[in-house]
Amino acid sequence: MNYRSDRRNFIRNTALFGAGMFLLPDHLKAFSSIKKSRVRVGQIGVGLRGQSHLDLLLRRDDVDVIAFADPDKDMLADAQKAVKEAGKKAPIEYSNGNTDYKNLLKRDDIDAVIIATPWEWHSIMAIDAMNAGKIPGVEVCGAIKLQECWDVVNTSEKTRIPVMIMENVCYRRDVMAVLNMVRKDMFGELLHMQGGYEHDLREVKFNGGRDKDGVEFGAKAFSEAKWRTEHSVKRNGELYPTHGLGPVATMLNVNRGNRLTKLSSVATKARGLHRYIVKHPLGGPNHPNAKVQFKLGDIVTTQIQTANGETIVLTHDTSSPRPYNLGFRVQGTNGIWQDYHAGELNAGFIYFEDKSKPHTWENTEAYMKEHDHPLWKRFENDAKGAGHGGMDFFVVNSFIESIKREAPFPLDVYDYATWYSITPLSEKSIAEGGMVQNIPDFTRGQWKNRKPIFCFDDQY
Amino acid sequence: MNYRSDRRNFIRNTALFGAGMFLLPDHLKAFSSIKKSRVRVGQIGVGLRGQSHLDLLLRRDDVDVIAFADPDKDMLADAQKAVKEAGKKAPIEYSNGNTDYKNLLKRDDIDAVIIATPWEWHSIMAIDAMNAGKIPGVEVCGAIKLQECWDVVNTSEKTRIPVMIMENVCYRRDVMAVLNMVRKDMFGELLHMQGGYEHDLREVKFNGGRDKDGVEFGAKAFSEAKWRTEHSVKRNGELYPTHGLGPVATMLNVNRGNRLTKLSSVATKARGLHRYIVKHPLGGPNHPNAKVQFKLGDIVTTQIQTANGETIVLTHDTSSPRPYNLGFRVQGTNGIWQDYHAGELNAGFIYFEDKSKPHTWENTEAYMKEHDHPLWKRFENDAKGAGHGGMDFFVVNSFIESIKREAPFPLDVYDYATWYSITPLSEKSIAEGGMVQNIPDFTRGQWKNRKPIFCFDDQY
Repeated sequence: MNYRSDRRNFIRNTALFGAGMFLLPDHLKAFSSIKKSRVRVGQIGVGLRGQSHLDLLLRRDDVDVIAFADPDKDMLADAQKAVKEAGKKAPIEYSNGNTDYKNLLKRDDIDAVIIATPWEWHSIMAIDAMNAGKIPGVEVCGAIKLQECWDVVNTSEKTRIPVMIMENVCYRRDVMAVLNMVRKDMFGELLHMQGGYEHDLREVKFNGGRDKDGVEFGAKAFSEAKWRTEHSVKRNGELYPTHGLGPVATMLNVNRGNRLTKLSSVATKARGLHRYIVKHPLGGPNHPNAKVQFKLGDIVTTQIQTANGETIVLTHDTSSPRPYNLGFRVQGTNGIWQDYHAGELNAGFIYFEDKSKPHTWENTEAYMKEHDHPLWKRFENDAKGAGHGGMDFFVVNSFIESIKREAPFPLDVYDYATWYSITPLSEKSIAEGGMVQNIPDFTRGQWKNRKPIFCFDDQY
Repeated sequence: MNYRSDRRNFIRNTALFGAGMFLLPDHLKAFSSIKKSRVRVGQIGVGLRGQSHLDLLLRRDDVDVIAFADPDKDMLADAQKAVKEAGKKAPIEYSNGNTDYKNLLKRDDIDAVIIATPWEWHSIMAIDAMNAGKIPGVEVCGAIKLQECWDVVNTSEKTRIPVMIMENVCYRRDVMAVLNMVRKDMFGELLHMQGGYEHDLREVKFNGGRDKDGVEFGAKAFSEAKWRTEHSVKRNGELYPTHGLGPVATMLNVNRGNRLTKLSSVATKARGLHRYIVKHPLGGPNHPNAKVQFKLGDIVTTQIQTANGETIVLTHDTSSPRPYNLGFRVQGTNGIWQDYHAGELNAGFIYFEDKSKPHTWENTEAYMKEHDHPLWKRFENDAKGAGHGGMDFFVVNSFIESIKREAPFPLDVYDYATWYSITPLSEKSIAEGGMVQNIPDFTRGQWKNRKPIFCFDDQY
């Protein structure tokens, strides 16, 4: 199918992605047939994260990677190398500065783009993609300004092009098993959820250039330290909400019968990044970066309230020495799961009133196996070797399969806007001493009638 | 020493408990000698909790239990039985209704009272005790009204009688080992703390009378279900803040170089207590209590900010099926402890940048043993068999030993007021949609100069 020549038909189909789809009683059945055999993808951003997506795209026989846009020629070379090793055709490159992606978007042989770029570009590029008739799948972060969330929603509604927010942790195996248990009503009515991004990123925020240790960030640094660290200098908020929020949002049916209504955020003092620079053998108290004042509090906590009376606590903790832990908690009237991601020590604890010995935690393993999600059971082998323990396979698979089926994305533009909005709202809350902020209803009331669609079967 | 006859001298000594003491550079050394060989105690409230304190008092050879006040004659009989079994002299009883304790307070042969009564009486009785020249040690809860916190402070300052808040979890063995590690600077500069009261109290909130299962509360019920449950009917807030807050407050030196400044609270919907009544074999949907509307949200979360830039998250979770867990987290620039109180599975995880394998949790056991607090080492045998894993011994011991030494209480009237104030402030916050509330400075600026005194050695 040539995209441009079939554009009218495509728009008719994709209208179902937009407002129209909310009237359908059962989306999944309506879209179960595969309408498109191949998806032609452009990648905007082929840094380390983009290359991880590329790896998954290259494994597939239903995807053609047509073009890359990235101003970083080293990253482009790495990406091309991966394509060559996969024996696939070299994508066209758009590398003439930060805005050459717009020329990629002008191509008429691309259906969709995957955007994996510095945070400040996500919404701008997603909007440009939609306006160019391309379906954007966007790597996760939080918004820079609240308005960009509305801009993405408005553009999607106007163009009728859907957006997928590529939140991989929604597809983590234990998270999906717990989702499965939630849907089997094992937890009873949900009450309280926790999640977060508790990940010591100091070695991501600082290095000495490619393959070099150090305490540099910005122009002298490599990969994310080039740009991500600057957000820790200038901003104080829940800068990376989706890994913690996405999984609990799918369980709570946020934007589909429920919505987030208010938040309040607090931040600790900022110590960790300065300390890292000063303590590092290549840093020290006289290193120029020892003078940098980091604004981001080391631990940021956000309390969120929902329309259905649940509460969510998010923790952002990326500047301190600590083991990785997304810290999920799912609690309902009949049971509770607490995830400690503690590796060999324990994966977490679980308790159900009608199953467990009273007042006694159980190990999670048997439950995770018994309630393994059908999607994981089906694609376990395909997910092997994919990033982040396999979950990255599923988010890319879902993006491609939704497009092939012309089906609504399981994580859509309203999720994008809602989850991204947490960041600027949390910044405002912290700046105002923890003041409560209203979270906009980006669905404009549609949340009341929209039905949950995230991963109800083994399809995608 | 006859208290009344020596009153002038006593007041001169006890002045050191009041405002005057804050001028001393090192309280502990100043008070290391034992000035009083015996303490004469009255107990106000001899329900199950009061009896637990009584048990500890009866073990001691430096305490005379002079009198009991309680309107519940069954509880009094139980308490007298314990005294008799200990071979001690029967205390005088004051059982003529709720206010007969005032007659106990008129006695001239009592130095101190332990107050373990329904929550609404704590501050009233503490104030009455101080006005009668008796030193109150008060069992924990939260305030009913904010004003009572000021009333207790003002009365203590006016009468120069000290108050001890008997927060036993401050003395939990692992908590004190962690306090020890905090003071050894193993965690670095503290940043973020968590704690809570996550305890399935449904079988405490409901029974069918003494030794009988059931879904009754109030007049038809036994022990705490008589009065505690009513708070779940009428109030929505962090009703029991001290077990979570006390231990982290001692680590953060709250009211002694630091203070709590603001809080914001959110609550989930209320489901658990109604569900318990309906599901219980002696309850059911037609039981009269199935009509009761409980106001207390099942899980209440409170974010607290401090003057020194740390944050604290408290969780109150007493109406849902779950294993007991106070959920402590102590996090600083160099390390983190998370407590899961998971019994045989694991007691928690710990990580120190300069000791642990990078990005990997360690089991807590070796650290807890190595940094066992001197007080626990010294009194381990005395604590055996005391309530709540031995920690109850220490809180009673500290109360008695402080009085004998005429030393300031390690947990004092400002801690009482600050910790108790969380409850009415959280209720107000929830009623206002999570709005931030200012936490008063009950020390009126003294927190800046007051020095930490909680458990620096093996004395008390």
